[in-house]
Amino acid sequence: MKLPENIKIIEIGPRDGLQNEATFLETKNKIELIKQLVECGFKEIEATSFVHPRAIPNLADAEEVIDGIREQSATFFALVPNEKGYERAIKIGIHGITFVLSATDSHSKKNLNRSTKDSIKELSSLVEHCQKDNRLYRASVSTVFGCPFEGQTEFGRIAGIVESLAKIGFKRVGLCDTIGVANPSQVYQWMTKLTNEFKQLEFELHFHDTYGRGLANVLAGIQAGVFSFDSSIGGLGGCPYAPGATGNISTEDVVDLLEEMKINTGIDKRKLLNTSHTLEGFIHKQLNSQIWKVNKSKCL
Amino acid sequence: MKLPENIKIIEIGPRDGLQNEATFLETKNKIELIKQLVECGFKEIEATSFVHPRAIPNLADAEEVIDGIREQSATFFALVPNEKGYERAIKIGIHGITFVLSATDSHSKKNLNRSTKDSIKELSSLVEHCQKDNRLYRASVSTVFGCPFEGQTEFGRIAGIVESLAKIGFKRVGLCDTIGVANPSQVYQWMTKLTNEFKQLEFELHFHDTYGRGLANVLAGIQAGVFSFDSSIGGLGGCPYAPGATGNISTEDVVDLLEEMKINTGIDKRKLLNTSHTLEGFIHKQLNSQIWKVNKSKCL
Repeated sequence: MKLPENIKIIEIGPRDGLQNEATFLETKNKIELIKQLVECGFKEIEATSFVHPRAIPNLADAEEVIDGIREQSATFFALVPNEKGYERAIKIGIHGITFVLSATDSHSKKNLNRSTKDSIKELSSLVEHCQKDNRLYRASVSTVFGCPFEGQTEFGRIAGIVESLAKIGFKRVGLCDTIGVANPSQVYQWMTKLTNEFKQLEFELHFHDTYGRGLANVLAGIQAGVFSFDSSIGGLGGCPYAPGATGNISTEDVVDLLEEMKINTGIDKRKLLNTSHTLEGFIHKQLNSQIWKVNKSKCL
Repeated sequence: MKLPENIKIIEIGPRDGLQNEATFLETKNKIELIKQLVECGFKEIEATSFVHPRAIPNLADAEEVIDGIREQSATFFALVPNEKGYERAIKIGIHGITFVLSATDSHSKKNLNRSTKDSIKELSSLVEHCQKDNRLYRASVSTVFGCPFEGQTEFGRIAGIVESLAKIGFKRVGLCDTIGVANPSQVYQWMTKLTNEFKQLEFELHFHDTYGRGLANVLAGIQAGVFSFDSSIGGLGGCPYAPGATGNISTEDVVDLLEEMKINTGIDKRKLLNTSHTLEGFIHKQLNSQIWKVNKSKCL
């Protein structure tokens, strides 16, 4: 089992986590959460989303959040679904953009109102904007390992999408298991092929823990040569297609797993658990992080 | 990633799970649970424990349970801590014995009131009894990957214990991560060495999901050449040393993981979820199985 020395964790809780919460988290609390995450050592944080406030009311304060964390020494990403969102993000001075698309047409049409192919076409000009505006950018492809409408996905289609994204200028490609159905064997096989075929790309994996396989999938991804993972503090996130399901893999548990395996994440575990404590106080519900649950009494 | 075609799951919920529950499960419900587990396809089930009823009141009905499942076509194991327990188990006609010992002296003295060395000495004559009485037997070693009192464990000590167990006649050796602190890197390294060094032994791994690493550890164990795993329906079990901790890895999630990876377990997943439903009705609390939580609404 060949393991790398370092793994990058991209904290996406403030965006992917909070967008799914039942209630709006006050802007000042969002800013405090992000500040604490920066102190934990995260270098890249997905801080918010520039979508229409009617679509995701929880993140309607995107500009105020970015404005409030301007002095923090980390790279902040925001999710952007279209040209309009891009303009808002640039105007407020975001460092990096996460562009979303879906691997399956059914999910794409439902979520973004266009086919996968049309998404890639639209992204082409946005990538050019990013290059001109000198911003970081990454693609985030939903439903890669399975789709709530189409079921199993085909590797050939995914490889084709990755190729198209590389062609229009993406260097960082995030592959998301939106509904948590990936299994370690699939992750290992697919990512081994993709990391071999697209050596110029930095792949990022994004797992959900719907069936408890999140950390096993991280392990399989690492073995296949992937060194960047999205995760969400407190395992926030949920899955609109699986009632009762847990959300994204929890940052606390991923960091703990990797550090126990002597893989460096650059994250201070003690500070991270203190941040979990802050977050639980903000959202008034039990976080979905195993290590937080066990250590909770010690932090209080 | 080389994977086997088959994996054996040893269902330990009726013993390791129920012993930790807050209340006694009525004997007839225990028998019903075990009958349903047999129908799911489990070939080996740890059905109860022959310990003093004062030590584990929840399993005080060991004889009645074994008597009630006599007609079922599976191999039933029971946990036995000493000579006295052995006599009770044989008298009622148990098929197989799980002998327990601890890898660390501190845990051993606290749990069994003797050192690891003395445990092995006592087990020596019990193994002879088993051979004479023509019963199956396996060792189950606690605190292998970490100890609540001594912290980290040393591989050399574990390898020495395995060697001693092989010498006194054990063919099946279960290594338990009693407090859930094992990590995949450790599991892979240790089990690769042990499976190479003791080719005559069948190793069985027993993981707890305290820090959410249970399934990742199963994956690492499989890659190291281990093909038998203990698990507990509904993730029952808990950990007396970690308040708030989850218990054993959940049978439902392990079976689902393996079947998704095209590894055959011989277990009918639909029947298994119906058994989860029965169990939840018996113990009146939410089970700790991800796939059960997601599928619950469909089963009701």
